[in-house]
Amino acid sequence: MTVSDPPPRSRSGRPGGGRRARQAKRRQQSAPRAPYIRRKTGTYDLLDEDSLQLIEANADRILQESGMEFRGDSEILRIFKQAGADVQGERVRFEPGMCRELISTTTPNAVVQHARNPENNVVIGGRNTVLCPVFGPPFIHNLDEGRRYATIEDFHNLVKIHQMIPHYHHSGGVVCEPVDLPANKRHLDMLYAHMRYSDRAMFGALIGEERAQDSINMAKILFGDEFVDTHCCLYAVSNTNAPLVMDSAMSGALKVYARHNQVVAVTPWTLAGAMSPCTAAGTLAQVLAEALAGLTLIQLINPGAPGMMGSFASTMSMQSGAPTFGNPEGAHVVLAAGQLARRLGVPLHTVGALTASKLPDQQAMEEGTWGLLMSFLAGANFINHAGGWLEGGLVSGYEKSILDADLCGKLAAFANGMSLTDNAQAMDAIREVGPGAHFLSSRHTQANFESAFFTPAIADNNSFEQWLAAGATDAAQRANAHWKQLLKDYEAPPLDPAIDEALIAYIEQRKASMPDRNYY
Amino acid sequence: MTVSDPPPRSRSGRPGGGRRARQAKRRQQSAPRAPYIRRKTGTYDLLDEDSLQLIEANADRILQESGMEFRGDSEILRIFKQAGADVQGERVRFEPGMCRELISTTTPNAVVQHARNPENNVVIGGRNTVLCPVFGPPFIHNLDEGRRYATIEDFHNLVKIHQMIPHYHHSGGVVCEPVDLPANKRHLDMLYAHMRYSDRAMFGALIGEERAQDSINMAKILFGDEFVDTHCCLYAVSNTNAPLVMDSAMSGALKVYARHNQVVAVTPWTLAGAMSPCTAAGTLAQVLAEALAGLTLIQLINPGAPGMMGSFASTMSMQSGAPTFGNPEGAHVVLAAGQLARRLGVPLHTVGALTASKLPDQQAMEEGTWGLLMSFLAGANFINHAGGWLEGGLVSGYEKSILDADLCGKLAAFANGMSLTDNAQAMDAIREVGPGAHFLSSRHTQANFESAFFTPAIADNNSFEQWLAAGATDAAQRANAHWKQLLKDYEAPPLDPAIDEALIAYIEQRKASMPDRNYY
Repeated sequence: MTVSDPPPRSRSGRPGGGRRARQAKRRQQSAPRAPYIRRKTGTYDLLDEDSLQLIEANADRILQESGMEFRGDSEILRIFKQAGADVQGERVRFEPGMCRELISTTTPNAVVQHARNPENNVVIGGRNTVLCPVFGPPFIHNLDEGRRYATIEDFHNLVKIHQMIPHYHHSGGVVCEPVDLPANKRHLDMLYAHMRYSDRAMFGALIGEERAQDSINMAKILFGDEFVDTHCCLYAVSNTNAPLVMDSAMSGALKVYARHNQVVAVTPWTLAGAMSPCTAAGTLAQVLAEALAGLTLIQLINPGAPGMMGSFASTMSMQSGAPTFGNPEGAHVVLAAGQLARRLGVPLHTVGALTASKLPDQQAMEEGTWGLLMSFLAGANFINHAGGWLEGGLVSGYEKSILDADLCGKLAAFANGMSLTDNAQAMDAIREVGPGAHFLSSRHTQANFESAFFTPAIADNNSFEQWLAAGATDAAQRANAHWKQLLKDYEAPPLDPAIDEALIAYIEQRKASMPDRNYY
Repeated sequence: MTVSDPPPRSRSGRPGGGRRARQAKRRQQSAPRAPYIRRKTGTYDLLDEDSLQLIEANADRILQESGMEFRGDSEILRIFKQAGADVQGERVRFEPGMCRELISTTTPNAVVQHARNPENNVVIGGRNTVLCPVFGPPFIHNLDEGRRYATIEDFHNLVKIHQMIPHYHHSGGVVCEPVDLPANKRHLDMLYAHMRYSDRAMFGALIGEERAQDSINMAKILFGDEFVDTHCCLYAVSNTNAPLVMDSAMSGALKVYARHNQVVAVTPWTLAGAMSPCTAAGTLAQVLAEALAGLTLIQLINPGAPGMMGSFASTMSMQSGAPTFGNPEGAHVVLAAGQLARRLGVPLHTVGALTASKLPDQQAMEEGTWGLLMSFLAGANFINHAGGWLEGGLVSGYEKSILDADLCGKLAAFANGMSLTDNAQAMDAIREVGPGAHFLSSRHTQANFESAFFTPAIADNNSFEQWLAAGATDAAQRANAHWKQLLKDYEAPPLDPAIDEALIAYIEQRKASMPDRNYY
């Protein structure tokens, strides 16, 4: 089964034309929609050559001395042994340079992830950045209800809202955990929601071989059997259990995706001070070591399969041991991780607008802005949690998702760099206007005004009196009204009814084959 | 009269020791206090060599073709004429390269600005960054009272609060306009407040020759006659009236400060689309042209006097023409301005945590974080409005000042770069802990924990339940409690009573010589 070409439609993925479409367009976007960011601007390189070599040597030493444990999967241990690694029990040690060579020989430096709407395909690697909403929270927060457990209705809402926002490039994965559904089956409902309500690229299920296989099977219904075997249609993250462990829940999914040529970001998730040393340099070497081991496994399973280096280093409160976000030390790690990934020749996966705040408040925006900007400056190719994250990842915020989306749009405009065309230089305008006059009514301003500046959806730039008359709202209140309007304006992107039926049939059959369980 | 050495005291400027001092210290700072940021990290260089040369050539062409108007001051026109500029009426045109040569031959590339407490002296230039609170708002905002006109009591409060915050390095100038005092006299009260309630470096009055002279006279009482003539003790900004005009209110003060070797930042303040072209490249060339003309004037008045290139480019709302802040285009301008200033060999002055928001809300923190971070990455040597700015500069926010201060602290920690000592590499710790264990109780973590991570004052990183039990506050509410506590803990840094009396006598005598006026 293959996807037939979708009918002609506007770039927002909805039938073009009409007052409603134009209104929605104004609400959504101030810049032309692009499927991902192509950076014309450079990266911020924190470390010099000597420092990078030092970290690389330390990672090699970690892999040689401590090695990494791959738990509960004898097949993986066999694969490593065959490749010449030193395998003792579940501990796998590598000679210096071995991982790097295996990885850099066959790992592609970029991969196209396909979306069911080809206009939304994303190129992951090179000077490209893909921004993706939050992943994983069991709770949601919005201004109307506060914080509560998330449901499948929230999941649908969030997928639809994200689909309406041009500044997110990816539909993501677990935009919230629908805890009203059985834990062992809900991956099917989540995959279906992305396939039905979004036409962007998406995650596969991350935990366990079986769910990864379900993801592949559903992708084959959506994209066609042969297409999926030869094209990347699902995005996956394989988190290590830092320090230096990968369990079978993660490696099981990794194996499935690697065999099917789907991209896997090997992402050490560390809380520095608990799961890695409480120093940036120590954490960085450990992150690199763990990523190298996982990326090596991908190439041993299927040489040429796409893999990404991941980095997700959070810090810790001195007072309580609680995770903290948006900190200088985390910025150091991600900026250097970008350099290390480029030297390794693989794309970088990392995380974005993170915060420990319980509310979409000042702390949330300060920490989130800091974190997302640093990941962008690191040259990250895929930024997970670029919007919507609250409370250390426990909460998916409706308003936060809207607020962060404006920042995502800013990054895209920033990435265009400074135009230096004759028109942008505006020398004629400066000469014509002259000292003491103004540019407001100049021909140059009239010709360029509409496209001159990025316009966020939520910022209020009016006078105090206008703002007062309009209700004296804060930005979160405006974001609240905005997501409701987006949901109202939402129309599902067209999907071949035969595919829809086949997806539903697959899900029903799979669900019928399993008892309900409230744990993974 | 000279300042005698102050008695020994803690680095926060208060007598050392005691429970209250320790409490206050915990509240204030998570990192050792430093008088300014010495950046070990690099700048983010947006433009390549060709692009920079193009902008420089455009600035030269603007100065040759349009020139700049110096209004209402025949002395300045005479000075320019004598130096070989083409003076027609009040219009002054320069041959390409003339300004650059005059500036770069004699302008110092760095200057020490002295504080009455020498521990607080700041070095402006090189790889240093000085962070300074908001300047100029006629209104204040706090959570208790909302927005209202500012008074001299607010001015005192803000100076005291800033003095208690380690992350601001400068006491600033018009931290709010005390509109309850006569407009033509309040500069005396403001200068006195900085001299009495802070022991950090400060601004002189910016508008008009007479007030600049008052500033010099009061600085001489504080620092001693000869000291002021040969040392920089006051910081001044001279804004152009973009496009391409400087009026006598600004040039009058510039002349006084230049003659007394006090630093002047020549700062074109543009609203792109109104006061400069609505493009970054056009605005940038105009900014450079205006700064070149002003910096040339300083060197013609007093060769070797310290001058800075300033850049303050805001953008405009497409809908209303209102100024907007924290935008990608403003970031392009400031990043490139940093490069241009370094090529010119003069320090860069710019602006920080700006926002159009009426409240210390999500918009305020997102825009402010973006703006301050970009100015820092530009390598700015002095960042005005690094904290406290709201509503396009109309409002000085008590809570905003506290919230922004945490970000200032983050920048300082970021600027330390990644440590690569043996201890920071933590290789022994990684070997000892090994796969699957944790670092919490490791010797390395125990030894490094307290100083490992930057700790903001306002962020809440606790669990949801702890946060709920503690009152479920947002960050602005915590900032509200924080500034009240800082005011309570505040103790004035010691000041020689004879100096205090002399300052008061000078102010009384000056006030008696003028009628009250409610305009400048």
